[in-house]
Amino acid sequence: MPEYTGYHGNSLEFLKINEISIGDSVKIFADIMYVGIIMPRYEHGDDKHIILKLKSGYNIGLEIENIEKIEKSSSSKKIVEVNEKVEKNEKVQDILLLSTGGTIASKVDYRTGAVTPILTAEELNSSVPELAKIANIDAKVLFSEYSENIMPAHWQKIAEIINEYSKSTYSGIIIAHGTDTMHYTSAYLSFALAGFPIPIALVGSQRSSDRASSDAALNLIGAAKFLTECKTNGIYVVMHQDENDEVIACHLGTRVRKNHTSKRGAFQTVGNEPAFLVLNDKVHNSLEMSFFTTKKFEPKIKLNEKVALVKYHPGYDPTMLKNIIDSGYKAIIFEGTGLGHIGKNMYSTVRMAHQKGIFMGMTSQCIDGRVRMTVYESGRDLLDLGIVPLENMIPEVALVKSMWATGNTENYDEIKEIMLDKIASEFST
Amino acid sequence: MPEYTGYHGNSLEFLKINEISIGDSVKIFADIMYVGIIMPRYEHGDDKHIILKLKSGYNIGLEIENIEKIEKSSSSKKIVEVNEKVEKNEKVQDILLLSTGGTIASKVDYRTGAVTPILTAEELNSSVPELAKIANIDAKVLFSEYSENIMPAHWQKIAEIINEYSKSTYSGIIIAHGTDTMHYTSAYLSFALAGFPIPIALVGSQRSSDRASSDAALNLIGAAKFLTECKTNGIYVVMHQDENDEVIACHLGTRVRKNHTSKRGAFQTVGNEPAFLVLNDKVHNSLEMSFFTTKKFEPKIKLNEKVALVKYHPGYDPTMLKNIIDSGYKAIIFEGTGLGHIGKNMYSTVRMAHQKGIFMGMTSQCIDGRVRMTVYESGRDLLDLGIVPLENMIPEVALVKSMWATGNTENYDEIKEIMLDKIASEFST
Repeated sequence: MPEYTGYHGNSLEFLKINEISIGDSVKIFADIMYVGIIMPRYEHGDDKHIILKLKSGYNIGLEIENIEKIEKSSSSKKIVEVNEKVEKNEKVQDILLLSTGGTIASKVDYRTGAVTPILTAEELNSSVPELAKIANIDAKVLFSEYSENIMPAHWQKIAEIINEYSKSTYSGIIIAHGTDTMHYTSAYLSFALAGFPIPIALVGSQRSSDRASSDAALNLIGAAKFLTECKTNGIYVVMHQDENDEVIACHLGTRVRKNHTSKRGAFQTVGNEPAFLVLNDKVHNSLEMSFFTTKKFEPKIKLNEKVALVKYHPGYDPTMLKNIIDSGYKAIIFEGTGLGHIGKNMYSTVRMAHQKGIFMGMTSQCIDGRVRMTVYESGRDLLDLGIVPLENMIPEVALVKSMWATGNTENYDEIKEIMLDKIASEFST
Repeated sequence: MPEYTGYHGNSLEFLKINEISIGDSVKIFADIMYVGIIMPRYEHGDDKHIILKLKSGYNIGLEIENIEKIEKSSSSKKIVEVNEKVEKNEKVQDILLLSTGGTIASKVDYRTGAVTPILTAEELNSSVPELAKIANIDAKVLFSEYSENIMPAHWQKIAEIINEYSKSTYSGIIIAHGTDTMHYTSAYLSFALAGFPIPIALVGSQRSSDRASSDAALNLIGAAKFLTECKTNGIYVVMHQDENDEVIACHLGTRVRKNHTSKRGAFQTVGNEPAFLVLNDKVHNSLEMSFFTTKKFEPKIKLNEKVALVKYHPGYDPTMLKNIIDSGYKAIIFEGTGLGHIGKNMYSTVRMAHQKGIFMGMTSQCIDGRVRMTVYESGRDLLDLGIVPLENMIPEVALVKSMWATGNTENYDEIKEIMLDKIASEFST
């Protein structure tokens, strides 16, 4: 089926009449002659222009009124120069790539901007040819979802698939993932697959690959390098360190957060340096990091979604907390203020939750820094009411961990014990 | 009444027997002789020690078993060297100080560590004598609450009091405030008192004044300097820029967030430099800032608390959103993922909210960066469902603004118009 994503009205009509669709290589005769590839339109745009990716990598908009003639030189099907069969390179290690969707997986062909998912190792190697020099990539598509639609059930599916490879000969596993919730997925996998024998890198991209500034290829290359050279295990998020293309950061899966909506360096290790950096083609272990754990690998994939994140703020109505209690939730993670506080107006409802045996953990909406509930009267009151301080755990990670803890046991004391047990460097002491 | 905060068991007994209480100047004979002031204990401690603040400013713990003798040299009442009446200095400007509570207000006497609130200008000037050289301070205690207990009704009370001074001869107003929710209060005041003729500085402290490292005095001095020299208006949060005592940052009240639980430089302007810095005794206007507004002063103090902040995450149950709709809420601010997304599983409930005329605004849990809902399909779907993108407004600020907007009108179109009108530099364009 011809692909027309983002085109409508006059421009859609124009493409159809000329039997041109997205991905086609074309010659366009207007003020001068342009040669390039027809691109999709990703934004609410007018219907007067079509977008052409020039050989330089830049995209231009051409007004259809000014186009005298458009000629197809090759169709989208033939653009990707697929090596019919990638020869296995015996000199490099093997990596498994699991694709879950997101910008990186659906538009990784940065020469064409085609929105189809990567389906085979061949297509991937064609679009990021540098990868073949680092590792033999076996690719497998799990699903194709933008990450705002990745649900806990998807996390479990990913964990089950990965679990099948615990005795494989792969050096590591790449998970191509949308960036929106990549850090939630990495947190879950860190708990469910703690001690997994080989390193796992979640990789995304912040810029659609149809842009000259796309970070997709460099993040993939950095991840492949990291996995084949890091000599450790654990779950990592591997992305640009900042706007600079020279440095790829490998963040521990339980200490990372997306802290900017659009920058390439959006992901940051909270309160510390990334665990590893890939710089000048070499993998550098951060000297400051000493928090790799060596748990025995015993996959625990179950989880329970009846867990709530409550961000306290002035005006927060305790009735909302009451609703959570009444809805059968098993755990509540507070994003308290400052060192871990919530208002006095919450106390009687908190007491009710404790009496019902609901686990309550305290984190801080400051995000960075440790909760300390012994400093002020409010904190001490909350400790007495049964709220458990969760050190410097990131609120989102505490949420995911409590889903996982309550999925694996219903016993309050065991839940509390799990929450305070450092399983995947989710807090420091 | 003698003050024994934090002491219990043996150490409390020891103090009582010797008729010593917190704030007393004492001589202690143990291995050597110590001279200092008895300090409160703020943390769950043992009952074997008492805490003494030495002249050097450092606190030490002394084991009561090893104390041979303790002698009171003066009682707490006499320590504060109150100038019976502060002479008004005609050479400096006048500042009004309103105290609402928090660490800064309750323990600002950093020589004694006394936990009583500052009640008079005299006491304040005695405890931070440098202030008198910068401005004549008139102090007024509004209430004495740690800021996790400051509610929207307190915000309104503060605004009403300040409004009484709109034609005063003060150069500026300091609000002493707990740090936990200081940025929520500053956001509200920025909207309610937009265009107020003189500058207002919210000042807190991150370290109890009983510690050598307290930031209370320096923040107050910086604020006084800022207010008397800045030559602008607006609402600011004035705190340490970082761990360095040399730089005090003045953050715009709608662009600031507490980003660390305990550091002195916890407050940061999101995505930009602070509006002003106080450095080397001078006030520096940040060159990057050009976002002061010049709204005509028309106080609008009303607000409505039926506003919800919904932080979307994988596993968020749309039933929780349904509860909010059914509870008569007037506005919902989403903390979406990435550029401003929530999962497809939320769509039908979002549609319901829109049909009920509830205002829905989108911000990002990334905190930094702008929401852009035209880039991906998910965002475009959400726009179609009636969610309004709120630029780069900080989620907490969007929440406070929507409380204020829905307090001042019930008309959906007017609420939307207010939310998208830049009133106090709450977003940039």
